[in-house]
Amino acid sequence: MIKKYSFGRPMDTDAVVQSLPPESEPLPYFTLTRTGQGVSLSLALSPDEVLFGLGESVRGINKRGFRYRSWNSDVFNHTESTESLYASHNFLVFFSPERLLGLFLDDPGPVTWDLGYTRSDTAVITSEFGDLDIYLLEEDSLPALARAFRRLTGRSYLPPRWAFGYIQSRWGYASEQEVRAVVREHRARHIPLDAVCLDIDYMVDFKNFTWKPDAFPDLKAFSRDMKAEHIRLVPIIDAGIRTEEGYAPYDSGKAGGYFCRKEDGSDFTAAVWPGMCAFPDFLRDDARAWFGDLYRPLLDAGIEGFWNDMNEPALFYTDGTVSKAFRRAEELQKGSVDYEAMWFLKDAFNSIANNMDDYRSIYHFPDGKPVRHDRVHNLYGAFMTRASAEGFRRYDPDRRFLLFSRSSFIGAHRNGGVWQGDNFSWWSHLKMALQMLPNLNLCGFLYTGCDLGGFGCNVTEDLLERFLQLGVFTPLMRNHSALHTRDQEIYRFSTWEIMRDTVSVRYALLPFLYSEFMKAALMDGMYFRPLAFDYPEDPRAVRTEDQLMLGECCMIAPVLEQNASGRYVYLPEDMLMIRFRSAADYDLVPLGRGDHRIDLKLNEFPLFVKKNHPVLLCAGGESSALLDDRRLTAVCRMDRDVAYDLYRDDGISPSPDLEKSLSRVSISADAASGSAVPGVAISEVLL
Amino acid sequence: MIKKYSFGRPMDTDAVVQSLPPESEPLPYFTLTRTGQGVSLSLALSPDEVLFGLGESVRGINKRGFRYRSWNSDVFNHTESTESLYASHNFLVFFSPERLLGLFLDDPGPVTWDLGYTRSDTAVITSEFGDLDIYLLEEDSLPALARAFRRLTGRSYLPPRWAFGYIQSRWGYASEQEVRAVVREHRARHIPLDAVCLDIDYMVDFKNFTWKPDAFPDLKAFSRDMKAEHIRLVPIIDAGIRTEEGYAPYDSGKAGGYFCRKEDGSDFTAAVWPGMCAFPDFLRDDARAWFGDLYRPLLDAGIEGFWNDMNEPALFYTDGTVSKAFRRAEELQKGSVDYEAMWFLKDAFNSIANNMDDYRSIYHFPDGKPVRHDRVHNLYGAFMTRASAEGFRRYDPDRRFLLFSRSSFIGAHRNGGVWQGDNFSWWSHLKMALQMLPNLNLCGFLYTGCDLGGFGCNVTEDLLERFLQLGVFTPLMRNHSALHTRDQEIYRFSTWEIMRDTVSVRYALLPFLYSEFMKAALMDGMYFRPLAFDYPEDPRAVRTEDQLMLGECCMIAPVLEQNASGRYVYLPEDMLMIRFRSAADYDLVPLGRGDHRIDLKLNEFPLFVKKNHPVLLCAGGESSALLDDRRLTAVCRMDRDVAYDLYRDDGISPSPDLEKSLSRVSISADAASGSAVPGVAISEVLL
Repeated sequence: MIKKYSFGRPMDTDAVVQSLPPESEPLPYFTLTRTGQGVSLSLALSPDEVLFGLGESVRGINKRGFRYRSWNSDVFNHTESTESLYASHNFLVFFSPERLLGLFLDDPGPVTWDLGYTRSDTAVITSEFGDLDIYLLEEDSLPALARAFRRLTGRSYLPPRWAFGYIQSRWGYASEQEVRAVVREHRARHIPLDAVCLDIDYMVDFKNFTWKPDAFPDLKAFSRDMKAEHIRLVPIIDAGIRTEEGYAPYDSGKAGGYFCRKEDGSDFTAAVWPGMCAFPDFLRDDARAWFGDLYRPLLDAGIEGFWNDMNEPALFYTDGTVSKAFRRAEELQKGSVDYEAMWFLKDAFNSIANNMDDYRSIYHFPDGKPVRHDRVHNLYGAFMTRASAEGFRRYDPDRRFLLFSRSSFIGAHRNGGVWQGDNFSWWSHLKMALQMLPNLNLCGFLYTGCDLGGFGCNVTEDLLERFLQLGVFTPLMRNHSALHTRDQEIYRFSTWEIMRDTVSVRYALLPFLYSEFMKAALMDGMYFRPLAFDYPEDPRAVRTEDQLMLGECCMIAPVLEQNASGRYVYLPEDMLMIRFRSAADYDLVPLGRGDHRIDLKLNEFPLFVKKNHPVLLCAGGESSALLDDRRLTAVCRMDRDVAYDLYRDDGISPSPDLEKSLSRVSISADAASGSAVPGVAISEVLL
Repeated sequence: MIKKYSFGRPMDTDAVVQSLPPESEPLPYFTLTRTGQGVSLSLALSPDEVLFGLGESVRGINKRGFRYRSWNSDVFNHTESTESLYASHNFLVFFSPERLLGLFLDDPGPVTWDLGYTRSDTAVITSEFGDLDIYLLEEDSLPALARAFRRLTGRSYLPPRWAFGYIQSRWGYASEQEVRAVVREHRARHIPLDAVCLDIDYMVDFKNFTWKPDAFPDLKAFSRDMKAEHIRLVPIIDAGIRTEEGYAPYDSGKAGGYFCRKEDGSDFTAAVWPGMCAFPDFLRDDARAWFGDLYRPLLDAGIEGFWNDMNEPALFYTDGTVSKAFRRAEELQKGSVDYEAMWFLKDAFNSIANNMDDYRSIYHFPDGKPVRHDRVHNLYGAFMTRASAEGFRRYDPDRRFLLFSRSSFIGAHRNGGVWQGDNFSWWSHLKMALQMLPNLNLCGFLYTGCDLGGFGCNVTEDLLERFLQLGVFTPLMRNHSALHTRDQEIYRFSTWEIMRDTVSVRYALLPFLYSEFMKAALMDGMYFRPLAFDYPEDPRAVRTEDQLMLGECCMIAPVLEQNASGRYVYLPEDMLMIRFRSAADYDLVPLGRGDHRIDLKLNEFPLFVKKNHPVLLCAGGESSALLDDRRLTAVCRMDRDVAYDLYRDDGISPSPDLEKSLSRVSISADAASGSAVPGVAISEVLL
């Protein structure tokens, strides 16, 4: 059951797809406080209560015990004390033996979530502007609640099937030759690969929708060559449009009046990669239509996937913040220099980026009337994603395109995926990546993954391998790293063979993982879930922070520690452990319910599977297009006849028919008899 | 067996106390490479090899897989990718089934430790200046190796017994009234407390050896009042001396010529808290003598403990770096402003602190001849500690003083303890604190602990509680936090009672933990050890990264995860678990060798004890002086007669007699019979 409560003057954020009338009764459960224009909701938490949700945010799966703030931020250097990441996902689930309650704040402005931070027994959630719809969701179970929320907010984005392949990316790839060399190194060593991302260096002066003519003399031919090798190119598009007359996207945007404005009616400009930029007013339908069509030259060149970046939006500086900093420096230079002056000075220059004064000076015109940016800040990336997706649908309504964004808001999950933003080559960020996944899924973002290996800092050999072992299971499996960090392609490392073998497992599992993903997406389910969703009455499962349910029947438990020789795993029921070393080399170990310490060498990682649920493996291959998904090996711990409905489709149709896409795989109970591992069947399946 | 190999022109770093002749044979085992003036040692690592050592450094107990750099740094904002912390401890142990080898680089300059970072199978250690003594240590066991290294470098510092009490600290305590209020709040709520630290705000304009006359009108009387309540005041002393004529420490330092100089012979000055400062040349005997005597007014006022800070040395800025930054800003303002220019600008202002050009412009005169600072940088904090300790010994040779430093080098462990430097209120820093402890002990620093609750950022209730649960066992148990962060005294939190109960456990254990500490120190042993030291043939123990051996017979395994309801523990042998809730409330649970999942509510924490080794508890109390260590409760899982030698002394004598300080506690085998917990005796002991 979903109820809606309106406060102030809510605006249409595109988050929900169901139109509900607001309740006339007051909001139940919560104590309401108004401070100025803000609205605060307060709720006492029971000792056993856990909180799920908030999508992309730091810390654990259980969000209790910290204070978060919904304010999309370019936070390259985030840590566990960072309150805001790149996205805002205002959905929270309260779960205890006494309560199951979903709370969605459909609020495009800043929201603070004090979830047992000030007092561990109290949650206080504050909408700073107080113009919002609050949705309360009550269902019988966590999965039902998640499904109800998805129905409220709409079906998850469907990527093309090739987007489940391994993707290599690096800030710095600057030419066709360089990309060809990267592909060649992968192919020569039989490291599977489906796509290469082009970061900002492919563009002319970092200008959107351009590419360097000398470095990419014939993009169409290059793209065609790559596709012949089963490689897609995935270029980046940033939010800002350089204010350069004669540059077509700027000229057309200017002519159309599609950019965000200042109070005086002039275009707001700020510097990002290309220098001074104007910012499309994605909240306007006409601006979105214009922007979405800007992708056409790239689409015409054969590009089928994009990543949208810098769309919080990130602002490096404005003329205003720069002159303010210089003025401050001049003042301080005149006065007495002391440590405080030096701090003010550092602060002056460090705060020229993403400055709140700048955000407050931006205006949108969603319906012809001005809306100050800070009231709708968290929509910007989501509406950029919408502009792109709408453009792709116009360009080719019969095809799925790959699209993932850095910034997002609930609603954007219908139009694209997200990556988890710029992270670091840190073990703590590997763990955080895992912990974000189920909460992103809960908020609708099924196609997601982190920058494997870490974007910033220098990766180590073991850390990259452990990142890849998580990445085997994340829908987006991308190795990405920053300029000036250690080269991070698999083939750069002395241990590249074990990394290759790890990626090979992804490809052996790809038909199965794709099936699990598509079924979750089409049935409004979750691909990754907290264990609590499957075992709500098992307190141990409810509090498990380093394992995830995957699809209908699987559980993952990656190694998250440097120099570990294994890890502990809690099994809420009897399961089969598949300990992978490669697509062809794995152990099958039936394990009982309870705690286990699993030995896992650096090249080993486990997948746990519920009894009587098969996992399907194909023979593997070096590209998703080359996998034989008609000849599979079913692995199953079983004590009865079992069946699995494998989802398969053409990989590009945007409106697949779920029922028609399912092929039933049946394994009879006797398949496990006489098996090398008692009770575990290994059956060949032909479809 | 210890062998010494000399390279270049090593200088006396005060690290070792044994004078060994250098070997004439070449250095065995390692492949030696010379690059310029540098010397590199390379060694192939076997797959199972683990590396212990490097004292204060990030990441795991096992140092393998990362690259470290010995370069003492003021790194408030350190993370797991920070190569240098506040101290340099150049001792590393290679341990595998095939090898046990200790390597000490007695090198006061920068050293890089690539420990399987570039290639996971190779260690490469590089002395950048190449003037050093290398010591190779070979013994039959890890404990023997640690003991041999301690004998080479000298006995660990002995703090007074009261320094094992709970210490409250915060940057910001600015007056007697404020300190009295802090003490009052503790005493009123029966939160045990032995000392309050005074951070820089007690001084006049942050000038060393001064105190604010209005805020502390009669320090001697205040100190006496506090001692009557069993509270010691522990003021901070920084490295720099403000260059203010008429300020006695500056005048006397200037007159004596005791400050570090520039190439032109003038004093090197840089700004720190008090503004422009000169920096004592602690490498000179006469400068140390002068500086050590500056503590006298504070000692005369009854102060018995100090913490030395900012002694990497931290440099906020110099006239040189500031004008360079301003010049850079002017240049950039003239040129075209772009994102790179903005980065250069930020960088210009961010790099005015701890600038390498500044360090290279400093000269020391250890023997009348100039030595450029960067060649001996890592000695500065250690020699400040030495100056203080020498001063205290001159002041009162019959008393131990509390002294702990931020920066250090091996050798300083004879003169003082260290805290683990400015950390954050992060769960990952709680874990890092645990992992640093055994390596600090290995390098000689037995009296140590981290800033409990975290120095920077805002702590949460559960994080502070879990920090305190670690702190119960660390010799230095100090709650410390930074200005502008959330108030962090226990009584500020809604859950203060469970925090109080946690501290009460420290006091119940204090006589026992003090005994364990003193025996370790006096016998050149380790208070905290990696499990490998006790179970070298157990591969699981060798790789355990989140448990520590403590003293003769104990093991700790704190909860290090947010929202955890317990944790896994590996027991390398049968043990008794004491699950504490308070000094009076604990469970006794015998556990068998192997893996266990232990339930631990927020207010619970375990201590594990080997069989037939008693743990002694006293009744507790609110100050270390009030504990009755003659009436104890022995708790022991036992199957035979057992005995324990409890170390007790007057708590201040600097040269205690180990043998005479031991009292034998004997428990006969039948004490466990008829016990409520089978096989576990709870015996009253009267001494």
